[in-house]
Amino acid sequence: VEGAVAAVRAGYAEVVLIGDEARLKTELARLSVSEPRLRVHHASEVITMHDHPAQAAKTKKDSSMRVAFDLVERGEAQAVVSAGNSGAMMACGLFVWHRTDGVDRPGVVTTFPTRGGVCALCDMGANTECKPITLAHFAVLAAVYVRLNHQKARPRVGLLSNGAEPSKGTELTRAAHRLLAATVDKSADFEYVGYVEGRDIFSGAVDVVVTDGFTGNVVLKASEGVAQLLLESLKAEVLAAGRLGKLGALLLRSAFQRLKTRLDYAEHGGAPLVGVDGVAVLCHGGSNAKAIKNGIRVAAGFAKSDLSGEVKRAIARHAGWWTGDLQHVSSQ
Amino acid sequence: VEGAVAAVRAGYAEVVLIGDEARLKTELARLSVSEPRLRVHHASEVITMHDHPAQAAKTKKDSSMRVAFDLVERGEAQAVVSAGNSGAMMACGLFVWHRTDGVDRPGVVTTFPTRGGVCALCDMGANTECKPITLAHFAVLAAVYVRLNHQKARPRVGLLSNGAEPSKGTELTRAAHRLLAATVDKSADFEYVGYVEGRDIFSGAVDVVVTDGFTGNVVLKASEGVAQLLLESLKAEVLAAGRLGKLGALLLRSAFQRLKTRLDYAEHGGAPLVGVDGVAVLCHGGSNAKAIKNGIRVAAGFAKSDLSGEVKRAIARHAGWWTGDLQHVSSQ
Repeated sequence: VEGAVAAVRAGYAEVVLIGDEARLKTELARLSVSEPRLRVHHASEVITMHDHPAQAAKTKKDSSMRVAFDLVERGEAQAVVSAGNSGAMMACGLFVWHRTDGVDRPGVVTTFPTRGGVCALCDMGANTECKPITLAHFAVLAAVYVRLNHQKARPRVGLLSNGAEPSKGTELTRAAHRLLAATVDKSADFEYVGYVEGRDIFSGAVDVVVTDGFTGNVVLKASEGVAQLLLESLKAEVLAAGRLGKLGALLLRSAFQRLKTRLDYAEHGGAPLVGVDGVAVLCHGGSNAKAIKNGIRVAAGFAKSDLSGEVKRAIARHAGWWTGDLQHVSSQ
Repeated sequence: VEGAVAAVRAGYAEVVLIGDEARLKTELARLSVSEPRLRVHHASEVITMHDHPAQAAKTKKDSSMRVAFDLVERGEAQAVVSAGNSGAMMACGLFVWHRTDGVDRPGVVTTFPTRGGVCALCDMGANTECKPITLAHFAVLAAVYVRLNHQKARPRVGLLSNGAEPSKGTELTRAAHRLLAATVDKSADFEYVGYVEGRDIFSGAVDVVVTDGFTGNVVLKASEGVAQLLLESLKAEVLAAGRLGKLGALLLRSAFQRLKTRLDYAEHGGAPLVGVDGVAVLCHGGSNAKAIKNGIRVAAGFAKSDLSGEVKRAIARHAGWWTGDLQHVSSQ
């Protein structure tokens, strides 16, 4: 609620808060908010983290998440923002909105900071089991996101593997690599650079990294874990360094602050679900008000720049390569 | 060569340098070393990063790596240390030494720093395709390593997944989870805590994380990438902070140095190949002399503490659980 209020006051969007009306109104009263661009829409059910995504999306018809997708479907809102069950977001996108024509599976795109800018990773967790064609489509989806959001005319796309040599990887990555290497040419919206390794996500070597949702999710959470440990260790070292260390830390405070801001997921504003007919942004499960505010900011941006229309057109341009009998490519 | 000289001088072990005799002797002369505990053994071939591991292990009989495994097999050395092709290390271990009785596949154990100590991850890259039983065995292998090397009487073992709920994960992780949850009891050398997420590798929540070699390798390299980016960004922020920032950095120099040491793979000394009849330590592909020196230190330690014998006895204690028809467990 606090994030939604901040987003409305920043002029990012008008917001419909969906959920238990009494609790939402109590919270608004606590914040002393009376804001015409913010309204409450009652929903009596909740999709929890333990619900089966597809089943919950279909049967919990008055859950806050399902109602949000229904409102967009009826044209009463232009985007959904949620920090809830990401599998259920995907299921609602598929069930209420439908998938973008020609897309094998929608993906979730998350961004990481790099030396020179950002790297977009798809998929960050919605699809634990993928086919080669799923990964090829993720390349198209994430490339559209990077073109629109980070002004890269022709993004460089890498396929995440455990080594640069084509003999590395799993059966899935080797088949996806053969498919992409055999088909992506100069007419594509992106450049396919081949296999990349875990460190290339952060090195600036590529603009997009494609992987299955299991690996993507593990990498995302491991990266958060490393960054958190590093900043905590640094703090502990500074405290252990005594009075001179404390003086040093004081002198460096603004430098630390800028670094923290650069790494803070709350600043980035959530991950779009791409490959469905509509705009949905997943916020981090541990989102604070700032993260929700920024999630609303990016969702409004995607609605304005017509992310889902751009994805539809990009898939139409590329998907012809990947229809028909691909057996000759993927079993080579 | 420089790392080997340092290891010998530190009294870690006697070292046999295997490779092109002329080049090795030139390097020793350049370092003005005449050291009775260091000898050169000629090998005319090299296994490269592009060689097919199993094929190279069998056919390149005079390669430095194969000769190293042969020397240990003949009792002329007690451990192998290499920064070369990790797949070929595994292949040499299997082909020249043989796998430990009862082990499905050997694994490579790497350690990460955590809040309170370390976390051992198995497998870090040798096995890209695993079965449920492979992951169950990795739990036993890595638990032995942690007991011997980090004095944990009963290590806590987690299975890496994209969420804590048992419905998460891939077919492989769900089957491995059912297998471990149904069989690991109080008589085991370790405690099985269930699914863990990427951030738990660094949080101190577990002592061992089990995963397939594809995911393990991606996580390892992504973590290195994040840490490197963070330290570089910090340096850049300090430089941007002007004169007061530079003074601050000066005051904090020893704190930064301790942090860097804690995160530096070169300090940790390489990753053991566990589940073969012998001691082999893989060093990082980008190893400097310090990393090789520490690799020799830990290899000598594993030979003294009889890591491979301990693994053999641990597998014998646990593997009875996992023989016969496990279909009833893994398809539940």
